[in-house]
Amino acid sequence: MDYDAMFTAQLDTLRQDGNYRIFAELERRCGAFPRARSCDEAAPDEVTVWCSNDYLGMGQHPVVREAMKEAIDRCGAGAGGTRNISGTNHQHVQLEGELADLHGKEAALLFTSGYVSNWAALSTLGSRLPDAVILSDALNHASMIEGIRHSRARKVIWRHNDPEDLDRKLAALPANAPRIVAFESVYSMDGDICPMQEIVEVAEKHGAMTYLDEVHAVGLYGPRGGGISEREGLADRITLIEGTLGKAYGCMGGYVTGSAPLCDFIRSFASGFIFTTALPPAVAAGARASIRHLKQSDTERLRQRRQVARLRAALDARGIPHMDNPSHIIPVMIKDPVKCRMLADILMNDWGIYVQPINFPTVPKGTERLRFTPSPLHEDADIDHLVEALSVLWKQCAIAHAVA
Amino acid sequence: MDYDAMFTAQLDTLRQDGNYRIFAELERRCGAFPRARSCDEAAPDEVTVWCSNDYLGMGQHPVVREAMKEAIDRCGAGAGGTRNISGTNHQHVQLEGELADLHGKEAALLFTSGYVSNWAALSTLGSRLPDAVILSDALNHASMIEGIRHSRARKVIWRHNDPEDLDRKLAALPANAPRIVAFESVYSMDGDICPMQEIVEVAEKHGAMTYLDEVHAVGLYGPRGGGISEREGLADRITLIEGTLGKAYGCMGGYVTGSAPLCDFIRSFASGFIFTTALPPAVAAGARASIRHLKQSDTERLRQRRQVARLRAALDARGIPHMDNPSHIIPVMIKDPVKCRMLADILMNDWGIYVQPINFPTVPKGTERLRFTPSPLHEDADIDHLVEALSVLWKQCAIAHAVA
Ligand SMILES: Cc1ncc(COP(=O)(O)O)c(C=O)c1O
Ligand SMILES: Cc1ncc(COP(=O)(O)O)c(C=O)c1O
Repeated sequence: MDYDAMFTAQLDTLRQDGNYRIFAELERRCGAFPRARSCDEAAPDEVTVWCSNDYLGMGQHPVVREAMKEAIDRCGAGAGGTRNISGTNHQHVQLEGELADLHGKEAALLFTSGYVSNWAALSTLGSRLPDAVILSDALNHASMIEGIRHSRARKVIWRHNDPEDLDRKLAALPANAPRIVAFESVYSMDGDICPMQEIVEVAEKHGAMTYLDEVHAVGLYGPRGGGISEREGLADRITLIEGTLGKAYGCMGGYVTGSAPLCDFIRSFASGFIFTTALPPAVAAGARASIRHLKQSDTERLRQRRQVARLRAALDARGIPHMDNPSHIIPVMIKDPVKCRMLADILMNDWGIYVQPINFPTVPKGTERLRFTPSPLHEDADIDHLVEALSVLWKQCAIAHAVA
Repeated sequence: MDYDAMFTAQLDTLRQDGNYRIFAELERRCGAFPRARSCDEAAPDEVTVWCSNDYLGMGQHPVVREAMKEAIDRCGAGAGGTRNISGTNHQHVQLEGELADLHGKEAALLFTSGYVSNWAALSTLGSRLPDAVILSDALNHASMIEGIRHSRARKVIWRHNDPEDLDRKLAALPANAPRIVAFESVYSMDGDICPMQEIVEVAEKHGAMTYLDEVHAVGLYGPRGGGISEREGLADRITLIEGTLGKAYGCMGGYVTGSAPLCDFIRSFASGFIFTTALPPAVAAGARASIRHLKQSDTERLRQRRQVARLRAALDARGIPHMDNPSHIIPVMIKDPVKCRMLADILMNDWGIYVQPINFPTVPKGTERLRFTPSPLHEDADIDHLVEALSVLWKQCAIAHAVA
């Protein structure tokens, strides 16, 4: 059998649809974020990154770097084992304490990534609670979808951000079955924020537990960076809060927080937690330093908000349509994978602006977009340069449209 | 509904069966491996770790630490995004080149862990190759089992390390379906090594592809650390070789290597690869330094082999039974979860020897064990001390048996 031919055939289909992905190879430049060295021939040597999820630039913050280097010198590189078999380092335990405190929960449990935390926690809850039903927001992230799929529990999809639909769907389920309402606070691709209070009230009314992904909100919202649930004063009413250390905290790793029995349950039964090498102590130390910093500093959040507002206003002033939402994520819809890549290529090669075209399967086909994430470290001049580039391109497109 | 009560009930069952896990909290001491600071009250402050999977102590090697610290200073902490969206750093691309070279393959693909690489690669192959059948060795690791389960492909289990059984099972399958033979080289809990040549020949005869997990072999076997497939000269006949950066290489991360179309296929379709923040550039840099070192240095491997042989001989001399196998893993069978934990507790608290009791679900019930992994950094005196402790305990057990 020619296996390579099978792989190539499916890759060819991707290419024909314009969905074949080419990764931009970068070297982040510490101290100069959002600047990075580009390794691509066609691009300028130095580019400005406009699509990073290191939302606050914490990846280059001295407290994070120093904590990591200090841990490397003190404890070495890797954890040396799974959490059970020699891999639980002091730094993991400290970080779990920090995370429980961040969300005002009894306990926290660390995973190698946000993806693994969602996948492992949902698959464990769904498979080990007899007759569990998982009620999943229609736009939930792939990691939650795969976790639910893996659990083989019954899955009910409710309309995106629609508490009334959730209410109807919960009402139709048996009240004596464990029901898990799974949703996100900030949805990463549209940047919309869920009506958390209504969702929580509906879940409480029906006696369902709530599973909240705050991956795109932790560090960014709430007075201590505890996410939308902190900002809205709802954290204590959510059963499980999940988050990442790889985005606003600038490192890597994922976690869940909740009651002590809940975390102990996932710790004890989740294959994706048990059978894998623990995070390097240095990564745990860096993440903890980042969390601690953002618990007491608002500077980064305020400056980010200012730059987000500034970019929105500048886009409006030039008539460049962008999706309206109350978050830090600014999607500019292109709605075609080929055009989306073309625009991104021009921005990169002619303007030194790096924004990755977002296509299927990250977003549904026909909703391809450029997604901008202004950080506190983008200067006003960076914003002006970006908007200038976009308006030139938009004018060219308008001409192309008129001529065609 | 009282969800916490449901969690507690299942945890109580674990406790009753002696399978409830208590993690030992350690602080690895860089430069003093296998010594670590214990954070447990009952244990001495300093303990000797006897169950680490940092098999060669590379986690504290200066080349690894320096590479990590240098990358942190140059590029910061995290990758800043998924591989597709701003997260591909120069260090990832370099590491993938190093890994392809290690196994003599066209290409390699990096994952956040060995667990994720197995899970994501097998679930992608199994679900996207129409009518695929996965032939899985009966003792495959959880990450492979979950990947196969997730794919929902047809699964056929063949008898552990039995090429004849594999042959029979392949003969019963349609020759025009994609068939994937999934197995490991070194099995981590029994330490046995697969009959690779026979397995490869059977797979070739039937036109099946081979999927080999070398997690417990890379860095350790083969002249350049390419694993058992390198040692046996079989790497070019294996379709896909999977490995980890978290064990002998002392860092974190996982990978697959194979043909360019195979790696591109997994890169393009695997949810667990696409939808997650990439490894920190510093972790990639550290892993690369470790691989490069072990490609040209045999010192660590030779010294490890010496200490493994020494521990085996010392156990034999004292009549302490251990599982015979041709690898670096020395399992001492206890066959009872409660006794296993009790012995481990005594070793830790009275002797400063840390060896985690291995129980269900890591091994089948009734095969609980202590699993020792001598490293090049365990001194002869450490071995003497361990064997002394074990023989005292064994004598006490014999007396207890005689009295009972
Ligand atoms: C909503 C959501 N949840 C979880 C994840 C996974 O987090 P991580 O990158 O830490 O794996 C992501 C993105 O990567 C995400 O967008
Ligand atoms: C055979 C095998 N494969 C894969 C893994 C997972 O590798 P990692 O620890 O890098 O997740 C392990 C152990 O953790 C293993 O024993």
